[in-house]
Amino acid sequence: MLITLTTDFGTSDHFVGAMKGVILGIATRTRIVDITHQITPFEVNEAAFTIAEAARWFPKGTIHVVVVDPGVGTARRPILVEAAGQRFIGPDNGVFTMIYDQGPHKVREITNTKMMLKTVSRTFHGRDVFAPAAAHLASGVAAARFGKLIGDFVRTETVQPALLKKHRWLGSVLKVDHFGNLITNFHMREFGKLRMRAFEILAGAQIIRRLALTYAESGIGELVAIEGSSGFLELSANQESAAARLGCGVGAPVELEIF
Amino acid sequence: MLITLTTDFGTSDHFVGAMKGVILGIATRTRIVDITHQITPFEVNEAAFTIAEAARWFPKGTIHVVVVDPGVGTARRPILVEAAGQRFIGPDNGVFTMIYDQGPHKVREITNTKMMLKTVSRTFHGRDVFAPAAAHLASGVAAARFGKLIGDFVRTETVQPALLKKHRWLGSVLKVDHFGNLITNFHMREFGKLRMRAFEILAGAQIIRRLALTYAESGIGELVAIEGSSGFLELSANQESAAARLGCGVGAPVELEIF
Amino acid sequence: MLITLTTDFGTSDHFVGAMKGVILGIATRTRIVDITHQITPFEVNEAAFTIAEAARWFPKGTIHVVVVDPGVGTARRPILVEAAGQRFIGPDNGVFTMIYDQGPHKVREITNTKMMLKTVSRTFHGRDVFAPAAAHLASGVAAARFGKLIGDFVRTETVQPALLKKHRWLGSVLKVDHFGNLITNFHMREFGKLRMRAFEILAGAQIIRRLALTYAESGIGELVAIEGSSGFLELSANQESAAARLGCGVGAPVELEIF
Repeated sequence: MLITLTTDFGTSDHFVGAMKGVILGIATRTRIVDITHQITPFEVNEAAFTIAEAARWFPKGTIHVVVVDPGVGTARRPILVEAAGQRFIGPDNGVFTMIYDQGPHKVREITNTKMMLKTVSRTFHGRDVFAPAAAHLASGVAAARFGKLIGDFVRTETVQPALLKKHRWLGSVLKVDHFGNLITNFHMREFGKLRMRAFEILAGAQIIRRLALTYAESGIGELVAIEGSSGFLELSANQESAAARLGCGVGAPVELEIF
Repeated sequence: MLITLTTDFGTSDHFVGAMKGVILGIATRTRIVDITHQITPFEVNEAAFTIAEAARWFPKGTIHVVVVDPGVGTARRPILVEAAGQRFIGPDNGVFTMIYDQGPHKVREITNTKMMLKTVSRTFHGRDVFAPAAAHLASGVAAARFGKLIGDFVRTETVQPALLKKHRWLGSVLKVDHFGNLITNFHMREFGKLRMRAFEILAGAQIIRRLALTYAESGIGELVAIEGSSGFLELSANQESAAARLGCGVGAPVELEIF
Repeated sequence: MLITLTTDFGTSDHFVGAMKGVILGIATRTRIVDITHQITPFEVNEAAFTIAEAARWFPKGTIHVVVVDPGVGTARRPILVEAAGQRFIGPDNGVFTMIYDQGPHKVREITNTKMMLKTVSRTFHGRDVFAPAAAHLASGVAAARFGKLIGDFVRTETVQPALLKKHRWLGSVLKVDHFGNLITNFHMREFGKLRMRAFEILAGAQIIRRLALTYAESGIGELVAIEGSSGFLELSANQESAAARLGCGVGAPVELEIF
């Protein structure tokens, strides 16, 4: 069985190691795959994007544990989500919003304390609640035994581009990747006409008019739009950081006009 | 069989990959788990804390390799430690002090060169000595075959809080975690009365009087004390870095008075 | 079957997770080992050094995937290399130069689209081309089925030390490691007489005359030369960064005179 981990724990402490130890103590044969432990601390929306983009490439039956959990130890619920043949375990704080957006899903509150460690701290549910729950699920415990289905789970509003006037939209930056590419919330499924029409993108006081097919076809550092691998429109500067060039980060406004 | 790795090698070089290659070349079916490779270079005490906090969550029989080894290539000995049903391999420089503190332990000097690579460099014993030793142990070679028991292994003095006057102690910061929480050396096993009594903590010229149960119950950035997941008292600033707020790092003094 | 990953993707995005999901979706039983995802973005030479140093420690049959690929989506070819009983998959941009240098090798262009995902993006061949090719190879598909042998693959010129005058050479820094050690391109195989003769190394306007056997035998911060674990001469400052001390990075000139 396969368990993936996505957290904001970083990789310099014992936190991730402790989670892995707990999992392997309960479900010895489990294989553990790190998605990332570098989510910006407490950034639930960033985690939501990351797990949605990673999970869809994993085989059915995979269990994804996500721990970005500023409310650890409070009344926020631990949940188990079933969607698209996969399972997700984490806090009920909106971190699975983009999984919910992708299709049908069942959400349970995890209330069965047999699926947790005997002693549950108030500050490290990754180790005490989410890791053991994932391991028990991997060992074959049925989802129904974890707790009851709930309907009032937390779902963050996904920010969609807003129509400003005819043919002009106001969108925003969803994520800045490792290379400094700006992933916007303009999805090519809806804005595919960009491919055939003249357009203007306004971001960080600069105007971009070119849609590149590959990063390398533009000059080094030239600002272009590009169809990103996640389906969203990206702003890119070949071998340089578009984020630094434009002074833009997560949430920055991006205006698009298609002529 | 399970082997974990804890080093100060970082993750940008080939060092960790070379160690994993050596292990998998000797013990093909071994599963390797990274605890961390981000120990501050040469900080033996930080590694001692990290492996002690991570190891106790792993199943019996796990082999933990720790390579924080400023004395590599000198007369310092490679050792194999058996404690609490687990095994530990690394340099004899105090890195297993907190494992020794946790209970009974047997320590052997690794002298059998059959458990090492044929050529041993003077600068990379992680690859040439510790990785192959761990792999041979994982393959079923008995501990006794690695070398003789020793009694004069290195044990760092664990810094305990010192009584300053009646009800007032001088402790220090053991570790700063990824979130900027300050993990102090006040263990709740001994200072549990904090939970029921008024107290004052003096750190970085600020006074903290509140014990929070969860990170989230305080205001954003409010300085509080909290019972950490490792059992030690932590100083925390909800969703901010207490280390930055207090200007404190590892070794910084922390005074505690309980009224 | 064992697949290793070496990329410049960093570990904060979903990129590495997506690659792992694709691999495990095709070849369920594969074990994946991360070499590093911290190659400096687009630095093909750094990746070439890292994979060559890591791969030689892995068992025969291992499949190494390397994705440092500034030309992704352009006409640069995906290739499959067989060398020393191992297999290598990545872009044909010189990233396997040091593997070619090590001995006999066969190189194929990967043209069989059955070995790729059904939809291939122009910006993420790590996920769409290289990961599935590695997984199919791990599943037992013969190398010949991936595509034809080619002879005109890209081979970067490996920079060798140049003779300046009798007994004096001009070399350069190949890599700076995590500890700040400068790995030069003087290989001890050719410059072993350093061990028995007086010498002078000129780097960053400082002169080094001492060959240390271990990092620890010199004073803290003392600049010395040392025989590195990869066989190349290194410049080191015990427990400090020689790179910072000398103001040198990759490509910096290093002059060696042997008396």
